[in-house]
Amino acid sequence: MGAKVALFVFFTFFALCSTFPLQRKQYAPCKHLVLFFHDIIYNGRNALNATSAIIAAPQGANLTKLTNNFHFGNLVVFDDPVTLDNNLHSEPVGRAQGFYIYDTKNTYTAYLGFNFALNSANHQGTITVAGADPTLKKTRDISVTGGTGDFFMHRGIATIMTDAFEGDVYFRLRVEIKFYECW
Amino acid sequence: MGAKVALFVFFTFFALCSTFPLQRKQYAPCKHLVLFFHDIIYNGRNALNATSAIIAAPQGANLTKLTNNFHFGNLVVFDDPVTLDNNLHSEPVGRAQGFYIYDTKNTYTAYLGFNFALNSANHQGTITVAGADPTLKKTRDISVTGGTGDFFMHRGIATIMTDAFEGDVYFRLRVEIKFYECW
Amino acid sequence: MGAKVALFVFFTFFALCSTFPLQRKQYAPCKHLVLFFHDIIYNGRNALNATSAIIAAPQGANLTKLTNNFHFGNLVVFDDPVTLDNNLHSEPVGRAQGFYIYDTKNTYTAYLGFNFALNSANHQGTITVAGADPTLKKTRDISVTGGTGDFFMHRGIATIMTDAFEGDVYFRLRVEIKFYECW
Repeated sequence: MGAKVALFVFFTFFALCSTFPLQRKQYAPCKHLVLFFHDIIYNGRNALNATSAIIAAPQGANLTKLTNNFHFGNLVVFDDPVTLDNNLHSEPVGRAQGFYIYDTKNTYTAYLGFNFALNSANHQGTITVAGADPTLKKTRDISVTGGTGDFFMHRGIATIMTDAFEGDVYFRLRVEIKFYECW
Repeated sequence: MGAKVALFVFFTFFALCSTFPLQRKQYAPCKHLVLFFHDIIYNGRNALNATSAIIAAPQGANLTKLTNNFHFGNLVVFDDPVTLDNNLHSEPVGRAQGFYIYDTKNTYTAYLGFNFALNSANHQGTITVAGADPTLKKTRDISVTGGTGDFFMHRGIATIMTDAFEGDVYFRLRVEIKFYECW
Repeated sequence: MGAKVALFVFFTFFALCSTFPLQRKQYAPCKHLVLFFHDIIYNGRNALNATSAIIAAPQGANLTKLTNNFHFGNLVVFDDPVTLDNNLHSEPVGRAQGFYIYDTKNTYTAYLGFNFALNSANHQGTITVAGADPTLKKTRDISVTGGTGDFFMHRGIATIMTDAFEGDVYFRLRVEIKFYECW
């Protein structure tokens, strides 16, 4: 009798686990990281220090200055050092590499698509993110859509804050990554 | 005895849920949206109305006209109003913002990467999508790879239809989003 | 009594399955593919054969030659044939379409964002990938972030190897895709 109950329950649950549409509640993250990254845009005179460059712009704009009109249409590629604190000169633990495109006509918002490539004693692997960055808001959430290495198949949310900026040339972002799917 | 059965079943299922490779069947979506968005490409003369702009093209092409050759190599950034019906002048519930790149040499297909940023009484949050848009097909499926706010960690499929178009300058897309992972 | 045990176990498991943060172990993939794709970059003289084109570059660079400085800032759009073996002239089973952006200043690494659009007797559907491609490494893992058709809602890892290359104009990639979430 006990065995029959067990079998019934077993198969019922197995069926439920595999076929119900997934509806999950948000609990504590299974992994958590805080990183800083540092972006210095090429302006025609800082080739040695620059970590990013404008590579596309609407008709008539040049590539050494972000456009007026909220930079709409500027595509920037970046190769930014990633540190564990807010000091540009701290030992980097990896790079943030990819692109952003200013995609709003009446405020400063960018489409962000990039990877964190981490290479340190604590973390080896990449984290792929994509999302919307309305840069004037205090915090912005973007999606972690995948990962490799230590972050194999992970998903989660990266919360970005502008930690500092100097005009259009330097800015520093603080990012807090909470993974809700770990493997 | 009952307690032992319960414990056995409990741990057996827990192990199964957490370790089996995921193989799911497709059932009803856990959330469902229908949206329209409206794209007006900048052509050199419509700066005030345009919601998008060509920002990159192959060697020799200009940025106020999509190339011949199926627009291969044109990168367009957009900031399109999103409405609940097919009227461009309805009250927007958000924006569709991001880019597409025509990436086929013998037909009209684009790589689509963008976010829906919804901001209305019913929905607050972003939906991140990526995928292939073979624009001549009646319906095209692209992937929802993540989300934030009301769409925290969601995944699903966005089915796009061209609802109307006028030459190369205006088009309207209907998109039906079915989420199969909700949180 | 047996019924009460069953109900208790039932609801306990249901609660566990739906609310625990996901922590999974890596097991065998639920689906597995090996593909090859072939990229011929437009260099100003091979318009008929070329499958890709440089469409953006930093200030001062032209669009028919990858830049020095590890191609930093070059954005390439591609429409590459996909085959089941390493022969460019084998019957294609689909296309690999999308873009890459060289995003590193001291080595050859690209952000990759593209779709496999498969159309053969064995596979119908798209696979969307994104990730970092440090091209000098023997193998590189990038994330499968979604899919449609036969690959509806799939996730996994695509492992890329450079199978052959000729200067900056032709290269062939072998990609092994392991899906760990199937539907």
